[in-house]
Amino acid sequence: MQLNCDLGESFGLYVLGNDDAIMPYLNYANIACGYHGGDAQHIQRAILLAKQHAVKIGAHPSYPDRQGFGRRSMQLSSTELYDHLVFQIATLQGLCAFHDTSCVYVKPHGALYHDIIESTAVREVFFSVIENAPKLHQVMLPAGPWAKALVEDAEKHHVTIIFEAFADRAYDNTGKLVSRTQPGAVLSQSEAITQAQNIMNRQHVICIDGTEVPLYADTLCVHSDSADALAIVIQLAELCE
Amino acid sequence: MQLNCDLGESFGLYVLGNDDAIMPYLNYANIACGYHGGDAQHIQRAILLAKQHAVKIGAHPSYPDRQGFGRRSMQLSSTELYDHLVFQIATLQGLCAFHDTSCVYVKPHGALYHDIIESTAVREVFFSVIENAPKLHQVMLPAGPWAKALVEDAEKHHVTIIFEAFADRAYDNTGKLVSRTQPGAVLSQSEAITQAQNIMNRQHVICIDGTEVPLYADTLCVHSDSADALAIVIQLAELCE
Amino acid sequence: MQLNCDLGESFGLYVLGNDDAIMPYLNYANIACGYHGGDAQHIQRAILLAKQHAVKIGAHPSYPDRQGFGRRSMQLSSTELYDHLVFQIATLQGLCAFHDTSCVYVKPHGALYHDIIESTAVREVFFSVIENAPKLHQVMLPAGPWAKALVEDAEKHHVTIIFEAFADRAYDNTGKLVSRTQPGAVLSQSEAITQAQNIMNRQHVICIDGTEVPLYADTLCVHSDSADALAIVIQLAELCE
Amino acid sequence: MQLNCDLGESFGLYVLGNDDAIMPYLNYANIACGYHGGDAQHIQRAILLAKQHAVKIGAHPSYPDRQGFGRRSMQLSSTELYDHLVFQIATLQGLCAFHDTSCVYVKPHGALYHDIIESTAVREVFFSVIENAPKLHQVMLPAGPWAKALVEDAEKHHVTIIFEAFADRAYDNTGKLVSRTQPGAVLSQSEAITQAQNIMNRQHVICIDGTEVPLYADTLCVHSDSADALAIVIQLAELCE
Repeated sequence: MQLNCDLGESFGLYVLGNDDAIMPYLNYANIACGYHGGDAQHIQRAILLAKQHAVKIGAHPSYPDRQGFGRRSMQLSSTELYDHLVFQIATLQGLCAFHDTSCVYVKPHGALYHDIIESTAVREVFFSVIENAPKLHQVMLPAGPWAKALVEDAEKHHVTIIFEAFADRAYDNTGKLVSRTQPGAVLSQSEAITQAQNIMNRQHVICIDGTEVPLYADTLCVHSDSADALAIVIQLAELCE
Repeated sequence: MQLNCDLGESFGLYVLGNDDAIMPYLNYANIACGYHGGDAQHIQRAILLAKQHAVKIGAHPSYPDRQGFGRRSMQLSSTELYDHLVFQIATLQGLCAFHDTSCVYVKPHGALYHDIIESTAVREVFFSVIENAPKLHQVMLPAGPWAKALVEDAEKHHVTIIFEAFADRAYDNTGKLVSRTQPGAVLSQSEAITQAQNIMNRQHVICIDGTEVPLYADTLCVHSDSADALAIVIQLAELCE
Repeated sequence: MQLNCDLGESFGLYVLGNDDAIMPYLNYANIACGYHGGDAQHIQRAILLAKQHAVKIGAHPSYPDRQGFGRRSMQLSSTELYDHLVFQIATLQGLCAFHDTSCVYVKPHGALYHDIIESTAVREVFFSVIENAPKLHQVMLPAGPWAKALVEDAEKHHVTIIFEAFADRAYDNTGKLVSRTQPGAVLSQSEAITQAQNIMNRQHVICIDGTEVPLYADTLCVHSDSADALAIVIQLAELCE
Repeated sequence: MQLNCDLGESFGLYVLGNDDAIMPYLNYANIACGYHGGDAQHIQRAILLAKQHAVKIGAHPSYPDRQGFGRRSMQLSSTELYDHLVFQIATLQGLCAFHDTSCVYVKPHGALYHDIIESTAVREVFFSVIENAPKLHQVMLPAGPWAKALVEDAEKHHVTIIFEAFADRAYDNTGKLVSRTQPGAVLSQSEAITQAQNIMNRQHVICIDGTEVPLYADTLCVHSDSADALAIVIQLAELCE
């Protein structure tokens, strides 16, 4: 089981997350591309930090919406979406090449991440971009009951999927995360460790309604935005060794 | 004598210049990097158009100021300037690599273009970025009496300079362009052709005060923002063949 | 019959429309608020020009999407949409007050304009903002079969609707504009004048399929983005006198 | 002695400062206008919070530079600077009017704050904007040896100055703040209280070199970006009662 985290999302004086503290524990660093977060300084710092700790670098593209942090769905045409995705991925690739490292996968961010699951049209654009990208054929997407359909679509485009799950968030019985606005959506440290163990060892999660739902994941998404979140990461990293 | 032009500067619905019409006449395409102009759509269109017409592609970075189109000097720290330049150049390099072509030189834009001449500190940052950029060692800068000093600084960083002059703009006797706000600053088509011939064949310009000033240039910068500008380009292209 | 036009949409060096030429013919000026278009310079110029020609000023708010010119629907929460609308309207009101004039109505822009017709949730937010705005109770919305439902909703919020129609765009038989991507979507000058006369004198339009659809409008929306568009305005202005 | 603080500077998910905690202790709230910080949500929250606690509201305009948080000087033309200042102030005025309160002074932000002291041209533009603003004639500027010259310039424009000093920052013997990059630039809580008492009771500060420099201030600028900063505010508020 591998750990991944969203990084490079700070902007100017505005700091999000704790890239320095979490990087040593990661296997995958999803680095912002300047659309929902990140800027010339923070993105490059994240790249250099990932390189230093030998963490795999992925581009983390978004809808063009900094004020909304990429969390709002936007109705882009297929052409617009294609061009915005290429722009972001190529930016990360160019920066990685400049700093003598490389970008080896793509994880979509926010509303785009969800729309790729919900909409076959959005997914088709996403996979087409990856297929056409030089030296890039891996994407990171949510584990869940849609996994088989995703894999079939991905294979047509010669794309491989890394499936991710969340240790510290409750799932509902459809395989989706319970919204943060609902009670019980965010798990305590001990619950998170239990859920991580269920995912790692038994390929399932216990949903918020108590039922058991199968969930196959290659990596766990972790956070560094609080001392609690970081404590979970440290314990997960030990578990995953 | 080669022709160069600033391209890819349109933004969303906002159109600047006529990239399609001018590209066939160019040797060098200075392509915006999304700071003073350009976006995911327009920058990629410019790259593909340059590739189609076998025009050399250069990154055209700027201060981070879209509303002012990069025309206002900004007091960035050396670190900030360095990071913003790398970001823009790497973006163009990444996009070129994505579209199976390459970015082979850098021409600074607007206030940055001027500050590189005026300020040794800004120039030092600029040359350092180019020195550290993978597979890139050419820059485009203004011809003028400062050329020798520029070359000396550039050589320390293993950077080569392509010197550019303007056919359609009057020069003053210090080797600078007369400000557009001054009468006589913009030359007529016939004056522009005469000035181009002076630059090409005699390595000088006749200044606005009538004196002759030596000017060595490798390339002429042209525009496509009006029918007149395009007519000059067509005539210059014939002259340069 | 009154004429209205979208103005103040230029941004920095990027020019859209011809505010100076069209203003003298207008009754209503829909002025951008800086979200889809406009900036400190261009918005204030439009306000001063409207004041000079005694044209009524309306705020023309949008989704927060400059790169897409507000033409892409965005899924904002009701709270976000409310705050973004207040921000834009209050900005126009503040600028009008600064220049000793006033903002007397609101016309939503682009995707927001359409979403207000399609979605009762979006419409509810929009009318609530107007209801709470000081000294403002008029909005401009599209004429069509939905007019009665709109009026009912508006009345609950003490809002009055100015209905607008388009002279130079073909309608389909549901009362909607034919998409610009369809053949026949944009009318010729003589067709536009005929359609304007039908709207003014007979309260109907002849749809693209030849059927007659009733259409009650208070104002015609006109454009200044081409010589043709301006010629139509001049002829319409004579017709409306 | 009155307390003032910069507020409303958060942007989307990015949080700066602790507006809720500090507002009850303030007399003046300098609220961002969306150029260096702030957005539709955070600016309005700050306005409503100030209104609730009966804190005077001031506009806090900046150069147009969100990525640099307004901390980098930009060479705007006088016309550009004028228009950008009016835009920001009018936005705050419009929002205050919308929420049935008012904006009663202006405090420039960041590099603009410094340039108003250093450059008579920038100062002239600034005072002209205030002179032309409806129902607004107070500005907040730094206390220091330049105070007399500022007052003379301000009087020509019928503008009144509120002078501010800093309790928690060391001064040098020219009346300027010691740069944060220098050792000893930021004072401890007890040093800050001592400095505040010197300013309040003896109209002087003890500079970093030990000399005593006269300093007349109407208000102290405080911060809420750390627990320490907030502790100083609470103690200062008691002192000022």
